[in-house]
Amino acid sequence: MVTPTEEKLDTKEIDAGSLSSSRRQPENAPPYVHKVGVLPRQNLLAEFKSTVKETFFADDPLRSFKDQTKSKMFVLGVRAVFPILDWGRSYNLKKFRGDIIAGLTIASLCIPQDIGYAKLANLEPQYGLFSFCSSSYLADSSFVPPLIYAIMGSSRDIAIGPVAVVSLLLGTLLQNEIDSTKNPTDYRRLAFTATFFAGITQFSLGFLRLGFLIDFLSHAAIVGFMGGAAITIALQQLKGFLGIKKFTKKSDIISVMQSVIHSAHHGWNWQTILIGASFLSFLLFAKYIGKKNKKLFWVPAIAPLVSVVLSTFFVYITRADKQGVQIVKHIEKGINPSSVNQIFFSGEYLLKGFRIGVVAGMIALTEAVAIGRTFASMKDYQIDGNKEMVALGTMNVIGSMTSCYVATGSFSRSAVNYMAGCQTAVSNIIMSIVVLLTLLFITPLFKYTPNAILAAIIIAAVLGLIDYEAALLIWKIDKFDFIACMGAFFGVVFISVEIGLLIAVSISFAKILLQVTRPRTAILGKVPRTVVYRNIQQYPEATKVPGVLIVRVDSAIYFSNSNYVKERILRWLLDEEERIEASGKQRVQFLIVEMSPVTDIDTSGIHAFEELHRSLKKRDIQLIMANPGPVVMEKLHASDLANLIGEDNIFLTVADAVASCSPKLVEEV
Amino acid sequence: MVTPTEEKLDTKEIDAGSLSSSRRQPENAPPYVHKVGVLPRQNLLAEFKSTVKETFFADDPLRSFKDQTKSKMFVLGVRAVFPILDWGRSYNLKKFRGDIIAGLTIASLCIPQDIGYAKLANLEPQYGLFSFCSSSYLADSSFVPPLIYAIMGSSRDIAIGPVAVVSLLLGTLLQNEIDSTKNPTDYRRLAFTATFFAGITQFSLGFLRLGFLIDFLSHAAIVGFMGGAAITIALQQLKGFLGIKKFTKKSDIISVMQSVIHSAHHGWNWQTILIGASFLSFLLFAKYIGKKNKKLFWVPAIAPLVSVVLSTFFVYITRADKQGVQIVKHIEKGINPSSVNQIFFSGEYLLKGFRIGVVAGMIALTEAVAIGRTFASMKDYQIDGNKEMVALGTMNVIGSMTSCYVATGSFSRSAVNYMAGCQTAVSNIIMSIVVLLTLLFITPLFKYTPNAILAAIIIAAVLGLIDYEAALLIWKIDKFDFIACMGAFFGVVFISVEIGLLIAVSISFAKILLQVTRPRTAILGKVPRTVVYRNIQQYPEATKVPGVLIVRVDSAIYFSNSNYVKERILRWLLDEEERIEASGKQRVQFLIVEMSPVTDIDTSGIHAFEELHRSLKKRDIQLIMANPGPVVMEKLHASDLANLIGEDNIFLTVADAVASCSPKLVEEV
Repeated sequence: MVTPTEEKLDTKEIDAGSLSSSRRQPENAPPYVHKVGVLPRQNLLAEFKSTVKETFFADDPLRSFKDQTKSKMFVLGVRAVFPILDWGRSYNLKKFRGDIIAGLTIASLCIPQDIGYAKLANLEPQYGLFSFCSSSYLADSSFVPPLIYAIMGSSRDIAIGPVAVVSLLLGTLLQNEIDSTKNPTDYRRLAFTATFFAGITQFSLGFLRLGFLIDFLSHAAIVGFMGGAAITIALQQLKGFLGIKKFTKKSDIISVMQSVIHSAHHGWNWQTILIGASFLSFLLFAKYIGKKNKKLFWVPAIAPLVSVVLSTFFVYITRADKQGVQIVKHIEKGINPSSVNQIFFSGEYLLKGFRIGVVAGMIALTEAVAIGRTFASMKDYQIDGNKEMVALGTMNVIGSMTSCYVATGSFSRSAVNYMAGCQTAVSNIIMSIVVLLTLLFITPLFKYTPNAILAAIIIAAVLGLIDYEAALLIWKIDKFDFIACMGAFFGVVFISVEIGLLIAVSISFAKILLQVTRPRTAILGKVPRTVVYRNIQQYPEATKVPGVLIVRVDSAIYFSNSNYVKERILRWLLDEEERIEASGKQRVQFLIVEMSPVTDIDTSGIHAFEELHRSLKKRDIQLIMANPGPVVMEKLHASDLANLIGEDNIFLTVADAVASCSPKLVEEV
Repeated sequence: MVTPTEEKLDTKEIDAGSLSSSRRQPENAPPYVHKVGVLPRQNLLAEFKSTVKETFFADDPLRSFKDQTKSKMFVLGVRAVFPILDWGRSYNLKKFRGDIIAGLTIASLCIPQDIGYAKLANLEPQYGLFSFCSSSYLADSSFVPPLIYAIMGSSRDIAIGPVAVVSLLLGTLLQNEIDSTKNPTDYRRLAFTATFFAGITQFSLGFLRLGFLIDFLSHAAIVGFMGGAAITIALQQLKGFLGIKKFTKKSDIISVMQSVIHSAHHGWNWQTILIGASFLSFLLFAKYIGKKNKKLFWVPAIAPLVSVVLSTFFVYITRADKQGVQIVKHIEKGINPSSVNQIFFSGEYLLKGFRIGVVAGMIALTEAVAIGRTFASMKDYQIDGNKEMVALGTMNVIGSMTSCYVATGSFSRSAVNYMAGCQTAVSNIIMSIVVLLTLLFITPLFKYTPNAILAAIIIAAVLGLIDYEAALLIWKIDKFDFIACMGAFFGVVFISVEIGLLIAVSISFAKILLQVTRPRTAILGKVPRTVVYRNIQQYPEATKVPGVLIVRVDSAIYFSNSNYVKERILRWLLDEEERIEASGKQRVQFLIVEMSPVTDIDTSGIHAFEELHRSLKKRDIQLIMANPGPVVMEKLHASDLANLIGEDNIFLTVADAVASCSPKLVEEV
């Protein structure tokens, strides 16, 4: 299944018969034909070990553990689990300066956003509008999780905290189970349960090195899903933006527009709209400046906090709340207590919490891993995806026990972090501390902050998630990917977040199924003035060889496609025979199957070839194989198919095969 | 996704720049390097149509409909749905003779088997031991379904009727929902409901041309599942064989052995065991004779009926039933009435029936399609898998309305049918008629048939399902397949039929996942005295080119593996650099990626290559591509990756690429 271990590269014994380099060709001998190489059978245990290694340890995480003493390996192990021990040792003042600036910048971005994101997860003011966590817990998910991450995580640039899409997803899924207005206590408890299981899921995937499962959600589907979620979130902000009191709890665009239009009768609060619209324009303008001039990246970073301060001051001065402008009103000071006792460890909500946790956890993982990889690639360092998942999982498990909900990496904040010159995860620690201080001392000031501002901040934030440039590129490159993208997008916008996600996953899987079950095949012809044979559709100047049909199968032949491959080859033959009949040329006497892309073949595939051989024999056509890989050769010999076809009908290249056929072609009248 | 339609083969316009066949090379020019061909962009609609065609209509079922008048197409259509109209026209006496003999032979095999198989589905004698269908309906599933199949089916050799494995599966799944002893009416109704939905499932799969889904259950898993089911069935026969009264309803080997040992205390009925054992030996001996001498195939075919007759006679003469030998006792005459009113179309059992029906339907399909394909291949005619599914589905739907349960093709009976010289599906009609006559007239004679005989017949029949030769071959060819086989086998034997099936399906899917997510890669070297580059592990005599690393990626690059491919290539590079450092050779300056097995690439794959290129550039290594296929070239241009790498860094063959690198290699100290 995988190439044998590297140690064998230099010391392999081979079949004496396949070595012909020492054979000297006499002057007038037939052209040199190199025999097809046959690997000696690999030890089953070695093959199993190398398969496991390639599947689960593909990035060779234990590379540095080679040839070390036991105590050293233990130390290396501890340092692997807690990377802070690694980079902490080389920490210096210069790095600290970079991290402080970055930390302050993202904290200023983070505080207003967190206030808003907790609203997305459906809590009413008297239960702590601003945080999920309870009446007195302000933006707590930006406090504990980043600290945990800084100790265990490997990405230097990621900024941890609650993010829009995950908050929306969590809020929607929880709302389906429990109404947050009617039963807020249980709602909160279910949220902690979901966070706990999200963390467990993430930890398990990383620990069992199943991280590759995340890769199954295609990039195109994620682009569509994020874009749809962004539109949904922006629409939900219309409640705060327009000052509407009665608003739908559903998330699809039809329900939202109905709420908006319906409330138009009661009149929208013009003061709210004025405040919201003016600050929204300010924020969008700040973003624009930041994009145009990379040096001014800090402008859109501090703009939200500035808006909050200015608008709070303005409302305080004008007492606009007396004129219908809704404000935050009340937030208690203080940090949150332990919430271990609030998690459902039994009862009907346990299963619901588990299900929601798994979904939210995996989406959160997808985001965080994508961010981690992107920045690691830009700064050219390596991160171990599975290790990251363990760190994120631990973070969420501990978070669930300290009144936090699902936190993950935020792309926009990580980008700001990066631009602000962060050096290590200490920027997250700085951000935590700033948030903590805010929690303890500055919260009363948020009393007069109008909801409209929070809405405007969120709208400005999520508009960045709508990556139309990526969608355009997807359209240009791969139409199927584009369908996945649009399917996810419209699913989220018009139906619901869960359905959109389901569509995204289904289309991703359908694409894999299609690739697996309908591999490509191609007819080959000889490219003039070379000795290579290529697809005649890509090289129309390539000429077919009379009397010989050359087919290339472009995939491993497994049970999922063996029958199709056999039938497709026979259909190519039928087409060719029809064409020949029409033109009166020589009939096909040899069918060469070019096997180089066939990386593996299983019993169904062997079976299919036996049936093909039998079919062809009935029509007096000889089956020939060209260029089978090592694994296929091994299986051809194990199954006796090599004998059935004939060892002298298996060649190294198509050219060799054709050269051996040509003399044997029988002229027919 | 698929090769463009054939019409374009002859009339394609191509980029003038890629045609170089007319260029004449002056005497001392550099060696001829053929440019890589670029397909012009295909019309989106044409590409979509050809994808749909290749996926759903791969076997070109409408081939004969080309260029026909409307009325002719209608006639062809009707004849396609009812193939009997086709072969019926060329029917003659010779064929009829072959069919009569075959029909009589399989009828004689079928009657005793059907009696026993209905028992597998859990009906007590007073409810019609022998058939599922009700007290008076004897082996009805061998009457109506074969008639329907003969009208609509395409296989000439398949013998339709109830089969052991499907009966077992159905019995087990139904028993899980309703106890057949406590609530037999509902049990029977649920069985009809399940049959109805099995038929609907089969019909839908065929009609929507989703037949390829059946291919996802790997052959190895089916071998294991069938073997396990055979052992389970044989063990359950111990009840009748040993004359045990109290027997477990579970199917796993532990429960069965417990029942057997427990009942040993009460003593097994020695007369029953004597009758059973002697006839079992007779049946096994008859099978052995049939295997040894192909001409005596009819011996094992009539042996069961002979056994039934002899044993009934024996019991009647000796009145052995007074001595504890359990007999069938009572079967009413007559054919079954309509059972449409018995199917659950609403209520809680609707969903259960649906679920059971889908599972049983798909397993039944797998068997029937496998049989159909095998015999079609042996006799060299084509069958359309999807059309077969439509026929089987209709058969089961109508069967559910006439008191039958799930019927499908039986391998052993089809083999007998084939050997006995069947010519068309008329053999099934003959078998139906014989069964009908038996139902009407001969049933009272079965009164004294001992259960032990039925048990012996079933044991003898299912022993043939244990295909240890196939399992051995699987072991030799593909160890992963063997794990799937054993997993299914032990799951069925030690846990339950459903769990065994689940294991079989899961392992099949895991294999596909593995293939998709961890494609092979290989380092290439030049095979001496040729111009080709091959895997150095298969051809240890192949030599690597100094300063150049050549990697081949053996799969399409999609989101499911793009990250892995990039990381793997970088790891190959790292290994090579370590090796070079140790040996002091020239460092790697060019990385050639051989792209011929990469049949397709999506946005994630393009992304991965962009990152790879960036990584390599940082290390001062040039990325080169060799031999990209048509689709990949198209996407390289659409995404601008071709520009990023450089058009002159994309070559037709690895040899061309190496030839262009060699002069540029910089000697380093």
